[in-house]
Amino acid sequence: MVPYAKRMEKMAFTANVVKGLFGSMTNPDIISFSGGSPAREALPVDTIRQLADEVLRTDTRGVEALQYGPIEGIRDLREVVVRELLAPKGIDCGVDNVIIITGGLEGINLACQAYIDPGDVILVEAPTFVQSVEIFDMFEARCVGVAMDDNGLIPEDLERKIRQCHPKMIYVIPTFQNPSGRTLSLERRKAVAELAAKYDVLVLEDDPYRDIRYSGEDLPPIKHFDTTGHVVMAGSFSKIFSPGSRLGYVVADTETIQHLVDVKSATNSHTSMLPQILCAEFFKRGCYPAHHQMICDLYRRRRDVMLQSIDRYFPAGTKHSNPDGGLFTWVELPGGIDTSALLQESSTDPAVNVAFVAGEGFFSDRDGQGKNCMRMSFGNTPEDLIEEGVRRLGGLICSKLNK
Amino acid sequence: MVPYAKRMEKMAFTANVVKGLFGSMTNPDIISFSGGSPAREALPVDTIRQLADEVLRTDTRGVEALQYGPIEGIRDLREVVVRELLAPKGIDCGVDNVIIITGGLEGINLACQAYIDPGDVILVEAPTFVQSVEIFDMFEARCVGVAMDDNGLIPEDLERKIRQCHPKMIYVIPTFQNPSGRTLSLERRKAVAELAAKYDVLVLEDDPYRDIRYSGEDLPPIKHFDTTGHVVMAGSFSKIFSPGSRLGYVVADTETIQHLVDVKSATNSHTSMLPQILCAEFFKRGCYPAHHQMICDLYRRRRDVMLQSIDRYFPAGTKHSNPDGGLFTWVELPGGIDTSALLQESSTDPAVNVAFVAGEGFFSDRDGQGKNCMRMSFGNTPEDLIEEGVRRLGGLICSKLNK
Repeated sequence: MVPYAKRMEKMAFTANVVKGLFGSMTNPDIISFSGGSPAREALPVDTIRQLADEVLRTDTRGVEALQYGPIEGIRDLREVVVRELLAPKGIDCGVDNVIIITGGLEGINLACQAYIDPGDVILVEAPTFVQSVEIFDMFEARCVGVAMDDNGLIPEDLERKIRQCHPKMIYVIPTFQNPSGRTLSLERRKAVAELAAKYDVLVLEDDPYRDIRYSGEDLPPIKHFDTTGHVVMAGSFSKIFSPGSRLGYVVADTETIQHLVDVKSATNSHTSMLPQILCAEFFKRGCYPAHHQMICDLYRRRRDVMLQSIDRYFPAGTKHSNPDGGLFTWVELPGGIDTSALLQESSTDPAVNVAFVAGEGFFSDRDGQGKNCMRMSFGNTPEDLIEEGVRRLGGLICSKLNK
Repeated sequence: MVPYAKRMEKMAFTANVVKGLFGSMTNPDIISFSGGSPAREALPVDTIRQLADEVLRTDTRGVEALQYGPIEGIRDLREVVVRELLAPKGIDCGVDNVIIITGGLEGINLACQAYIDPGDVILVEAPTFVQSVEIFDMFEARCVGVAMDDNGLIPEDLERKIRQCHPKMIYVIPTFQNPSGRTLSLERRKAVAELAAKYDVLVLEDDPYRDIRYSGEDLPPIKHFDTTGHVVMAGSFSKIFSPGSRLGYVVADTETIQHLVDVKSATNSHTSMLPQILCAEFFKRGCYPAHHQMICDLYRRRRDVMLQSIDRYFPAGTKHSNPDGGLFTWVELPGGIDTSALLQESSTDPAVNVAFVAGEGFFSDRDGQGKNCMRMSFGNTPEDLIEEGVRRLGGLICSKLNK
């Protein structure tokens, strides 16, 4: 039979991890801390229904919603991005610096199309988002992990790896990172932008959680400190509007945007029009501020219950991150517990029936790091089930340590 | 600055042609025969508004429409594809043979991700769809043209090129081809499937116009004759439902579909949910047959007016294809007229103000073929404007020949 492309072998491992992530979202009997889904309560169904009715009742907009559209996305939505999502974060740019994409993740794919040749090195946080590594594998890049601490990736290790590996790109999720929930500090954001300029390396700043901050002080994106055009930022509407709409955006200098327009046209022509129009109307009509307040309050309560429950039910010696936003915390277990084996048991034993994501898959170096770690998502689980799930899981972990 | 990937240079030429196609759709003063858009009258705006209202009023479906969904697409829509679009065409398969994608064109991108390494040869029709060649360029394939006549690509030339070039893939648009409007005959469809099996070459059958047949006899897809799993078929909802929804599908053996699921997850996770649900409901509630009849009648009338007007207003010696469906005809002008220069004049002279697509860009070999050809789309222009535009354009052409 016709052989597959070489890249398929390279991406087989991470593709399986990713399929596991999507699969575990659909079993209704399990208390799932595994997926990265927003809360169902955070989806503005009624508002979107009213907007859809109005848009599709208007002759020209109805046709616009169903006809082919511009490769770079509709102007209304690009203006919303500039005015409501970038300007308040200290990024001063125009609509020509913005392209609308089919979910924030497509920005990673398109940036790789535009910049990555097989064999290029991409520096990633250790741990990092496994679905991005799947993309880097598909583009036959070589990922090298950079060490992190509670303040995000460590600039000294970043500079050392830049000198050692001559990377084409640094991939960073600076805010409420997936999977760790950690946030890169202000000083380090500056340092990353400076190192990129100094060594002529591209920074791909993946910042889909930034807008869901519910405690602590807001920080400007790395892109804010970019004076040389080395930072390409991908943002997403998945967490603040709706993930099923598959809407995101990339911010970059105009030349890079033109190249992203070319690879976008060779990927799927443009992003679906009705979701773009509904999202633009959602912002233009002022629905966002109250919605934003509601979802931040919701996630803050869920985070609080999860962290308190871990403190209460997990064994002594457990560590967890303290996210100021987003949907995840990162847990390190004591006593040499292997979280992959734990997951196998917790998700199949009917007395536990709890899922999470084992930590090992998030380390691109695959050197055994993260074996005792787990990503715990509190985004799409009600508070009582968060406590119940953590209690059951804690019981299982404690029983293993006491053996 | 950080260098772009090598593929960007390779795709620069076709990317510019494609940007021209999209750009010319938006100038309202021009009678445009250039874009491939469906008629605005063919977009079921009211029906979709009613379906959206109902779907978003239902608690579980409303949440489903806005939440993350399965990589391979929703089951409802995959079942619609199997039952209503494939079975009637003689393709007998199950939902596991179908993946939903973000517009038919994404199928070309994903098939290349799964199968094409740099340097691989792809045989294409001469002429062929330039946006697909843009994708093949992005994947650094080498395109080689296969000769066509009025019955589509010529099997003898196809076999000769297979032996000469050892291609990985044969890319065919068999029905109402873009740009030529020609249809591959029944015997040749069988021959393509047999040659693919004999020489172990993949056939990528791109068939987005198939369902808009308004004269002549229906023909089974090449996939119907595939007994060895060598044919991957991409279909689209753009012409029968709505192009702005960006919905399409790929049909293949289950192993290929699994690989396409992997590259889809590394492209944009999955296709937008609300459009998928609306499209599935459109078919499930029986809206399609009457809609289909209406759009076929509409396009038949427009084709008739265009072909009659060309016969009337274009100079003697003009040839055109006689499409039995789809949105295009292909015109060959006599007397050595260069259609690129003609377009420059016809689209900027306010006394003409007519656009089309010059033929040269559709020949991937770029050997000067097609200089006297043009693609004329009648899909999105009312009958009176079709006649008026062809009259003006014919006048300009005749004035050049008489100089």
